[in-house]
Amino acid sequence: MKNELILLAHGSGGKQMRKLIEGFAGKYFSNPILDKMNDFAQIDGGSKTIVSTDSFVIKPYKFPGGDIGKLAVCGTVNDVACSGADVKYLTLALIIEEGLPIADLEDICKSIKKASEEAGVLVIAGDTKVVEHGAADGIYINTTGIGIKSIDADIGGEFVQPGDKIIINGNIGDHAAAILACREGLSFTTPSVSDCAPLNGMVKELLAQCSNVRCMRDPTRGGVATVAGEIARQSKVGINIFEQALPIEQSVLGACELFGMDPLYMANEGKLLIFIAAEEADKAIEVLRGNKYGKNAAIIGEVTDKKQGVVLQTAIGSSRILDELTGEILPRIC
Amino acid sequence: MKNELILLAHGSGGKQMRKLIEGFAGKYFSNPILDKMNDFAQIDGGSKTIVSTDSFVIKPYKFPGGDIGKLAVCGTVNDVACSGADVKYLTLALIIEEGLPIADLEDICKSIKKASEEAGVLVIAGDTKVVEHGAADGIYINTTGIGIKSIDADIGGEFVQPGDKIIINGNIGDHAAAILACREGLSFTTPSVSDCAPLNGMVKELLAQCSNVRCMRDPTRGGVATVAGEIARQSKVGINIFEQALPIEQSVLGACELFGMDPLYMANEGKLLIFIAAEEADKAIEVLRGNKYGKNAAIIGEVTDKKQGVVLQTAIGSSRILDELTGEILPRIC
Repeated sequence: MKNELILLAHGSGGKQMRKLIEGFAGKYFSNPILDKMNDFAQIDGGSKTIVSTDSFVIKPYKFPGGDIGKLAVCGTVNDVACSGADVKYLTLALIIEEGLPIADLEDICKSIKKASEEAGVLVIAGDTKVVEHGAADGIYINTTGIGIKSIDADIGGEFVQPGDKIIINGNIGDHAAAILACREGLSFTTPSVSDCAPLNGMVKELLAQCSNVRCMRDPTRGGVATVAGEIARQSKVGINIFEQALPIEQSVLGACELFGMDPLYMANEGKLLIFIAAEEADKAIEVLRGNKYGKNAAIIGEVTDKKQGVVLQTAIGSSRILDELTGEILPRIC
Repeated sequence: MKNELILLAHGSGGKQMRKLIEGFAGKYFSNPILDKMNDFAQIDGGSKTIVSTDSFVIKPYKFPGGDIGKLAVCGTVNDVACSGADVKYLTLALIIEEGLPIADLEDICKSIKKASEEAGVLVIAGDTKVVEHGAADGIYINTTGIGIKSIDADIGGEFVQPGDKIIINGNIGDHAAAILACREGLSFTTPSVSDCAPLNGMVKELLAQCSNVRCMRDPTRGGVATVAGEIARQSKVGINIFEQALPIEQSVLGACELFGMDPLYMANEGKLLIFIAAEEADKAIEVLRGNKYGKNAAIIGEVTDKKQGVVLQTAIGSSRILDELTGEILPRIC
């Protein structure tokens, strides 16, 4: 990698990012906790403490359906919730560009307060750094979330089994479409709104009713296709996605057509891919639809023992492989 | 604050930063854990989990005595260690500017590995974001540290008492002087080297021998004067600093003279201010001097019941108040 430079694609959530991170993480930071490569880490010990960290660099920092403050709470809350833990605490670290209007900072703090209250988490530690004008872009936020896992279930990317069903709790691509429209100054008849939301309440309801959830993961950067691919690799299984079953808004399809994008690769911020034993799938759909963040929940795929990655079963009966994302379709989406 | 903008001074560690953070933290995030305003947070519960978060934006990201990777490990390890906890885990979140040489990223990862091995901490979770060229400055790193406190002592900024002695484990100002010389392209006969170091081992030795440590805090942004002022406010006490007792390198004094800076306000990254019961102070000095990071440990002040902030007893017998830092003397020092 001599003389190579970091590219935007290294942050895409796709292939280049995976190669970079797997390379460096394996070489320098390998340990049994990190090596699991989930979006959360379980600290060993009686109390089963779960930890997840994320930095948010979304552009613009205010968008239809939320802002970077709401996103920074929801993104990390959702990662911790995907472990099956109760999310309890957040740390909050701000990197602010000189010249940011203090009123904007205050709005962002209000969003953080509102989202963390909805999620039922406390902000327990913080940090503020200010960099010169031109050394950041408005504001970047890191949150680290801490949860306590009191249920005994094995939940993670490594526990998926052939025969499992794959559920999503609603429409895909809303977040990316909202950011895209907002950046490009587009207005559609039905404008897209980010789905950014804290999903820990919905997850709690699901886990109270279903005991065979194998894995939950939020399809953010890289979208459903990329995240399904990650999990297929972790569990060494194949995944079929049913094109006709995918819930998508008409306006998102419109944006995709306009920009030549595929909704399966577009980021979501209020969605989970849920892998669950087939016999519990209908029950799960019922529970999810009872929550405001799961009204359009649908079974969108199944797990197979064919190790061929992620395959899309199209509406016309053909099938095509959903490869890992290469390059960067929409930088700074989260 | 309408129409007001964020200034570099809001990140200085001084007065403007305190006002901004106290204002927003009090207004939006108040809770018993955060409100203690220590550099670490103790999560309630049997296991006494301690958490601290910090983002690092130092410029340049490579400097005499370390780099942003080493700093990001040491800074957070030291904050957690100051609670009296064993530091166990770190999360690691990178914000990388497009165009960063991958070889530099690899060097930074090597530093993180080396420092975390010395400190005995595991990196358990990570995140990587890439922003466009010009939307960051090389690389910014957030680390969140997690420790387990197994000793029963009350240690924190709120536990300092009149009569306590104040100890520092060595020379002050080395970090800031090294960064300054490096930025300005200066070469002194004896060049300054950052004191950046993980101090959790030294703290462990200290706490094994001394049971009346009231507070430890690393005087980073704002230096000894500013951090002493924070603690004086937290414990509602006065603080006397003895000018003649302050250990300072000749080269740091030289840099201070050249730039009109006061070493008492200059950042350190391998130093702790230790507040301890008077009767244990000599014992503490002995223990600290036995550690490689405490060779020049000295008693540099004492705590009084006069609520007059921080007062410097000068070499010529006069005294002057060490006010909070206002403005920003050296941005992006950590």
